[in-house]
Amino acid sequence: MKHIGKQTVQLLNPVTIDCTYSIVGPKESEGPLAKFFDNTIEDAFYDESTWEKAESKLNSTSINGCLCKSNKSVTDIEYILAGDLLNQCIASSFAIRDTNIPFLGLFGACSTMIEGMSIGSMLIDGEFANNIICSTSSHFCSAEKQFRFPLELGSQRPPSAQWTVTGAASVLLSNEGNGPKITHVTTGKIVDMGVTDANNMGAAMAPSAANTLKTHFEDTGRRPDYYDLILTGDLGYIGHDIVVDILKADNYDMTKNYNDCGILMFDREKQDTHSGGSGCACIGTVFSGFIYNQLQSKKLNKILLVGTGALMNATSCQQSETIPGIAHAIAIENI
Amino acid sequence: MKHIGKQTVQLLNPVTIDCTYSIVGPKESEGPLAKFFDNTIEDAFYDESTWEKAESKLNSTSINGCLCKSNKSVTDIEYILAGDLLNQCIASSFAIRDTNIPFLGLFGACSTMIEGMSIGSMLIDGEFANNIICSTSSHFCSAEKQFRFPLELGSQRPPSAQWTVTGAASVLLSNEGNGPKITHVTTGKIVDMGVTDANNMGAAMAPSAANTLKTHFEDTGRRPDYYDLILTGDLGYIGHDIVVDILKADNYDMTKNYNDCGILMFDREKQDTHSGGSGCACIGTVFSGFIYNQLQSKKLNKILLVGTGALMNATSCQQSETIPGIAHAIAIENI
Repeated sequence: MKHIGKQTVQLLNPVTIDCTYSIVGPKESEGPLAKFFDNTIEDAFYDESTWEKAESKLNSTSINGCLCKSNKSVTDIEYILAGDLLNQCIASSFAIRDTNIPFLGLFGACSTMIEGMSIGSMLIDGEFANNIICSTSSHFCSAEKQFRFPLELGSQRPPSAQWTVTGAASVLLSNEGNGPKITHVTTGKIVDMGVTDANNMGAAMAPSAANTLKTHFEDTGRRPDYYDLILTGDLGYIGHDIVVDILKADNYDMTKNYNDCGILMFDREKQDTHSGGSGCACIGTVFSGFIYNQLQSKKLNKILLVGTGALMNATSCQQSETIPGIAHAIAIENI
Repeated sequence: MKHIGKQTVQLLNPVTIDCTYSIVGPKESEGPLAKFFDNTIEDAFYDESTWEKAESKLNSTSINGCLCKSNKSVTDIEYILAGDLLNQCIASSFAIRDTNIPFLGLFGACSTMIEGMSIGSMLIDGEFANNIICSTSSHFCSAEKQFRFPLELGSQRPPSAQWTVTGAASVLLSNEGNGPKITHVTTGKIVDMGVTDANNMGAAMAPSAANTLKTHFEDTGRRPDYYDLILTGDLGYIGHDIVVDILKADNYDMTKNYNDCGILMFDREKQDTHSGGSGCACIGTVFSGFIYNQLQSKKLNKILLVGTGALMNATSCQQSETIPGIAHAIAIENI
């Protein structure tokens, strides 16, 4: 068994992140991380007739872009692991339909990218594959329409709301190469603290992120200061602060090197996204764009990446259910 | 690399199916396989206020039932792999919320159970876990409501339609024990032959099943007659016959030992389900109930289990998209 502690796997042969590709929408391309993305679109429809088709096309572009940037061909890839927020993950399915790569579909809500990189790195370390692509997408318009209200209503968003990132990201994991490496995988449990407000996802997901972080620290014996950066997926400003508070009570100081992709994605003053960014593509594009760049240039050498997901749907909220959260963590190091 | 051929993994240490648990709804408990299920419910609401909550409770019962039947405790289980047909897989999430087991969410439509057993057996063979639970569920009422029409409309179903199985199943995979063993995993690619009729899922999924079967035969060098039984997930009568036809053209004779869980689940004459059963729970409960019993009593010793999924949603059909199919195969043998 390759487990250390309760929920963490230490990979015997750390898995290389060979290549990444990110594509984002109009609003994201005006944000502070704009220059790090591989590609941007000017119109949310991306030359398609519906937002769902546009999201799928973003996903498709990211997969093809990742393959083009790498020196691998389609036939080198044993599996593609992907999922998204659309009902029955259709953005992924329709994007992957034409790739001719064996497909394992995932649903971890906004933790999907890190769930994919977790399973993918174990499959490579276990010698079930040499190369795996992990991909995900989200789209502000398709997500609002599906989870909240028709955009045409122009509903007012409360201050706790987050803005679903329009974009897609793909990561190519490999058993060879000199890129940054995934060394540890901590798989999370569902945590539900009873939040029922679908406009406060940060609060719903923060307890699960704190739970996975604490477990990772206990399992590895590491403290938060081991890492150059600890980065959660899409907790936004509210969820970020809750994580700091919960872990402070457990004697872990998260005030020095902890940030959230939902905070990094948009400019708080100029872009008015309230509590920050969210969506599967939030951690996907921030990692594939900005963070991977920082790892390659050795400005960052040890990071802990925590994907966070809210496991609800529109029906469960209407049926007065609470919102369960989940979080998966992977350690990435230049070694 | 543990791959043989293009898409098949041969497990170095075949993974034991230690225990299974199945629970089905009222209609299924009147079918020909009734006596093989562990548990049945008399009312589709299962003492809950909504069909979605009832489905989640079925899932929860199957997970707890599987743990109770085995000699394992919750703390012996490193991962639970699960998914279902409800938007954002809420039947699984809400069922697993209280288990305190690390959770990896999957979406493979009705192939989810076999996708879970595929990933689960690789994670155990790769020494990332000793014990993994794979579970899934479906519910006729929640599925009809979500994918087709409100049940209250009493819409007429065409002859090609299938009846979503109400039920849930869980399987406990282990690195030890004397049960039947998973020896090979063939992961499928998405195949889309352009079917657009959401009331003919069998036809939409059959080409992907045929593709995965053909790939499995080529990768392993086995012919159909190697197996005592080849069993697809939920192609029903129409999809079953299409698979036979496609593979006949490729020189594989599927007329001797091939059946489908959608055919086995209901009595064609008395139960009037048109083209047979479907849903994630179809292959889940037929395997966990009837087939596992036949493997344990050595009436079957070599089977090939092929989960089949239609990767669409209600919106994609309204947007005139075709219905992509996927199929994953696992070989299970008494060795």
